Amino acid sequence: MAKFKLDEIDHQILDMLIENTRVPFTDIAKKLLISAGTVHVRVKKMEDAGIIKGSSLTLDYKKLGYSFIAYVGVFLQNTSKTAFVLERIAEIPYVTVAHVTTGKFNIFCKIRARNTEHAKDVIFMLDDIESVYRTETMISLEESINDKKRLMHSIFNDL
Amino acid sequence: MAKFKLDEIDHQILDMLIENTRVPFTDIAKKLLISAGTVHVRVKKMEDAGIIKGSSLTLDYKKLGYSFIAYVGVFLQNTSKTAFVLERIAEIPYVTVAHVTTGKFNIFCKIRARNTEHAKDVIFMLDDIESVYRTETMISLEESINDKKRLMHSIFNDL
Amino acid sequence: MAKFKLDEIDHQILDMLIENTRVPFTDIAKKLLISAGTVHVRVKKMEDAGIIKGSSLTLDYKKLGYSFIAYVGVFLQNTSKTAFVLERIAEIPYVTVAHVTTGKFNIFCKIRARNTEHAKDVIFMLDDIESVYRTETMISLEESINDKKRLMHSIFNDL
Amino acid sequence: MAKFKLDEIDHQILDMLIENTRVPFTDIAKKLLISAGTVHVRVKKMEDAGIIKGSSLTLDYKKLGYSFIAYVGVFLQNTSKTAFVLERIAEIPYVTVAHVTTGKFNIFCKIRARNTEHAKDVIFMLDDIESVYRTETMISLEESINDKKRLMHSIFNDL
Amino acid sequence: MAKFKLDEIDHQILDMLIENTRVPFTDIAKKLLISAGTVHVRVKKMEDAGIIKGSSLTLDYKKLGYSFIAYVGVFLQNTSKTAFVLERIAEIPYVTVAHVTTGKFNIFCKIRARNTEHAKDVIFMLDDIESVYRTETMISLEESINDKKRLMHSIFNDL
Amino acid sequence: MAKFKLDEIDHQILDMLIENTRVPFTDIAKKLLISAGTVHVRVKKMEDAGIIKGSSLTLDYKKLGYSFIAYVGVFLQNTSKTAFVLERIAEIPYVTVAHVTTGKFNIFCKIRARNTEHAKDVIFMLDDIESVYRTETMISLEESINDKKRLMHSIFNDL
Amino acid sequence: MAKFKLDEIDHQILDMLIENTRVPFTDIAKKLLISAGTVHVRVKKMEDAGIIKGSSLTLDYKKLGYSFIAYVGVFLQNTSKTAFVLERIAEIPYVTVAHVTTGKFNIFCKIRARNTEHAKDVIFMLDDIESVYRTETMISLEESINDKKRLMHSIFNDL
Amino acid sequence: MAKFKLDEIDHQILDMLIENTRVPFTDIAKKLLISAGTVHVRVKKMEDAGIIKGSSLTLDYKKLGYSFIAYVGVFLQNTSKTAFVLERIAEIPYVTVAHVTTGKFNIFCKIRARNTEHAKDVIFMLDDIESVYRTETMISLEESINDKKRLMHSIFNDL
Repeated sequence: MAKFKLDEIDHQILDMLIENTRVPFTDIAKKLLISAGTVHVRVKKMEDAGIIKGSSLTLDYKKLGYSFIAYVGVFLQNTSKTAFVLERIAEIPYVTVAHVTTGKFNIFCKIRARNTEHAKDVIFMLDDIESVYRTETMISLEESINDKKRLMHSIFNDL
Repeated sequence: MAKFKLDEIDHQILDMLIENTRVPFTDIAKKLLISAGTVHVRVKKMEDAGIIKGSSLTLDYKKLGYSFIAYVGVFLQNTSKTAFVLERIAEIPYVTVAHVTTGKFNIFCKIRARNTEHAKDVIFMLDDIESVYRTETMISLEESINDKKRLMHSIFNDL
Repeated sequence: MAKFKLDEIDHQILDMLIENTRVPFTDIAKKLLISAGTVHVRVKKMEDAGIIKGSSLTLDYKKLGYSFIAYVGVFLQNTSKTAFVLERIAEIPYVTVAHVTTGKFNIFCKIRARNTEHAKDVIFMLDDIESVYRTETMISLEESINDKKRLMHSIFNDL
Repeated sequence: MAKFKLDEIDHQILDMLIENTRVPFTDIAKKLLISAGTVHVRVKKMEDAGIIKGSSLTLDYKKLGYSFIAYVGVFLQNTSKTAFVLERIAEIPYVTVAHVTTGKFNIFCKIRARNTEHAKDVIFMLDDIESVYRTETMISLEESINDKKRLMHSIFNDL
Repeated sequence: MAKFKLDEIDHQILDMLIENTRVPFTDIAKKLLISAGTVHVRVKKMEDAGIIKGSSLTLDYKKLGYSFIAYVGVFLQNTSKTAFVLERIAEIPYVTVAHVTTGKFNIFCKIRARNTEHAKDVIFMLDDIESVYRTETMISLEESINDKKRLMHSIFNDL
Repeated sequence: MAKFKLDEIDHQILDMLIENTRVPFTDIAKKLLISAGTVHVRVKKMEDAGIIKGSSLTLDYKKLGYSFIAYVGVFLQNTSKTAFVLERIAEIPYVTVAHVTTGKFNIFCKIRARNTEHAKDVIFMLDDIESVYRTETMISLEESINDKKRLMHSIFNDL
Repeated sequence: MAKFKLDEIDHQILDMLIENTRVPFTDIAKKLLISAGTVHVRVKKMEDAGIIKGSSLTLDYKKLGYSFIAYVGVFLQNTSKTAFVLERIAEIPYVTVAHVTTGKFNIFCKIRARNTEHAKDVIFMLDDIESVYRTETMISLEESINDKKRLMHSIFNDL
Repeated sequence: MAKFKLDEIDHQILDMLIENTRVPFTDIAKKLLISAGTVHVRVKKMEDAGIIKGSSLTLDYKKLGYSFIAYVGVFLQNTSKTAFVLERIAEIPYVTVAHVTTGKFNIFCKIRARNTEHAKDVIFMLDDIESVYRTETMISLEESINDKKRLMHSIFNDL
């Protein structure tokens, strides 16, 4: 599978969009001394190649009343049920991340809830999925880092 | 601390921006049968209140050569060093998430790396931070869910 | 939910009752330079608000022949049975505390027994509850602190 | 060591005081068809024998803003420091119970805190005690049973 | 239950028998300056009281071809099967000790086998008992102490 | 190293002595239709070969006030201290068995104590040995099997 | 069972073949000052005795696209299925080593795969074997030593 | 990095050499209907490319008196010492495999020893390396599979 090649201009465009996805293309064009059309073409090309998959808002969950974060490790009765269980998990909106993992857990989830009581409800939803036989929960006392921008800048500098 | 109150209009605006942060305000206005100015004011208000903290691109890390994800639990010699260690961790761009947690780990990180070898380097960077005395790693075999949009829609429906 | 507001007088009344629930209201009144009727009204108000839920004797369990304390972690086959199992646990008087918990256990209990043999019987009662599939026990070698008074004083000083 | 012998009258007195420590002795006397003086003598005797060690209020911690309960297992660098560490722990009012235990932990504590953030502070206080080298925390999602009365009644029925 | 009282003479008799169960009673009598009849009566009395339950040879298992010692922790599917499983275990002569325990295991055994292969067979016998769902084995690299005599002397000195 | 060969007569002698070490040689001789002198010679030979290392009384520890049994896993700071620590352990008479083991513990001990409090003292003696940095304890709720006779009979039948 | 005795010449032959299994016998003969026929006879004798079981190429798996190594611990529902499960495992070519083990796992495997995704497939193959109820995986970040030659030389020097 | 491309002929040559590294090139040539010179050139090319790194004898360790296999997990005080510790490990010939791993261990080794006693010595050698602070051992009861040939055939069939 041939990898899509990003050049210096692509990097600089991504570098600006990472900081603010709503920055007007004309601003990017001005900064990089290229035409807005070029910016548009480049972004379109990266979207078509699947490198840019979309954009999302960064909201303050605490201010929205969702200050409780926990990681939940899920043990399955049989890993042949992995796909089935992941579909059930995807129906729980409070699970924002789920991985199939090595180590003691079969599936590892990140959940966001309103408070301890709500977290209990979400954990019980996971526990009650058929083929899940146990879960273990680790509660976040503080989300200290949640930032992909440093990684993205690093990737574009490495490339 | 008085919580910021979002009304029905705010919800609908957020609901559209969540799907695409670059959607023009005029499109939102047309859909909600309000003026573009109102959309602008509302968004500004939510930004000022700190509810909208920014926006970010959703990139395909695999296509960028970063297909390796792992969770690393960090044990500290002394939790009085937590802030110090978190600062050191924040200097490693491959750590995209870090939490102070309950349970067996003091700090729990998510890392993205190019491959097994690179992951080893990143884990060793964590291990070499002063006051870190051990780490334990759990490797992701598949990132099945990474989606905050379901949560956001759910929050706006709940409110 | 509006929180009941305790004022300085309430605090001082609680502070005295915590040390000795049987202290006559006239003694409290004299000490605080208020009337016994006021003490009565205040206490009644705090009882009605549910802040004072009752009072209990502090007995010496060792002298009563109950010197054995253990913590028992309970694993359930399915957390949908949590309420059912807690009802069964509540029928065992030797279980003085039970929590639904995060981490490896589903329910976590504190038990008091006469001796090792009696403890085994109590643990087996827990094990034999339907839907409980395993328990793990940690035995107390010495109850070093069991004192809510320091907490209460601290709360009233904080408020 | 000769054990203090409680007779039937003692049991009935304790049984009433357990339910309400503030019940007047005249009420107890009337119910048991004995004189109030006898009740007084009996209670005094049980206090002198150390069976009744005192009384305490049962407060609603949630209403007082302390809804967060956790169990914290403490590992020591060396158990010869147990007494020293317990003294330091006793200075933290948020620790309401502490046991020297068998199994993986050296000391096992119950803490009450205002919320996740406050819990983190309390856990860090424990972590920062000299000779404590690690702690592990298990968070209560619900305190389902906290009731010594069933045990006390059972003890008086057994005797 | 009234405890049998051992006096100074009993202690000295036990102290000699512990070292060598075949020592003639006349030798004990001579040493303690009492009659052989008295020794006989005393020993008979301790046997009748169940304090002396019998005697056993101390053989060198290595020389008999049984040099492999392991501890096997047994997990049951349900502790209500404990008595049943212990009966099955008692049919395996290579299990020399078995305890019902607290902690992670339900039953904890000591086994002696000829070698690694034989140990595997013995462990599989345990695993194959109905209601046993898992075992965990810890192998002895060296039996450094196996001596109850120090304890017995200490007990007789303490009494 | 040539192994000592036991013949059929040796087995039958051992089989009788195992049941009762004090059985007179004349009784053994009569049963096996050999002379008492032969029994004497055979036993002497097995003692000289180190197969019979001695004999010990089987006492009822509960009746002697020692009803508490626990297994204690010992972690060393450095296994080069194993011999040193075992010597210190051998000075504690309440440790009746000690093994150097594979798995998580360096040394694994069996202790007998009077009660919970005494057990705590014994565990602390172990903890306070230089180079021991942690111990983990598993308490016996019931000693169900402690019997080497079945093994011995099995060995003599196998041979 | 009488052990085959290797003499000094055998050792030296093995020592050379270990370094290079394709070394011509004439070269070995010349170096050891014996005839090629003798080398041939000796090697044949060691093959017949089963000491030399064959020879294998040492390939560079990374260069062949198999750079992912993991250890997988397998838990069985019942050890009576061990032989059955091992047969199923032997049908998976990516499992290069499998042991029946003591400790927490029943079977312990080493696998080689192309990458994380392929490893997941191989682990799922193991998980899907009847009677396997769980697996735990530990991923190799670097194969630092994989060399039996040092052992072989050491054996021949010891003999 | 361009990968070396193996063609069908290369695969068939490797397939034969895997079964027997000492098979004469003329036999391979005859079977594949090519010249012996071609076989030679191809093998040379694969050796130069580093795909064939050498060859080794498959010996029967049991017959050589080395029947004891164990896996030893090594915990380091600090992973910055990993390279240093691996160098020390490489000096112990009884360690045949060593990996830097994720999960609870820092380094994971396979050892071969003569017997339990020798295994203890080898484990102590590992324990005594500076910066190693603990090891955990899992003993093999049976090496059921140790065969890279199935993998190699599979690789050549996949390619």
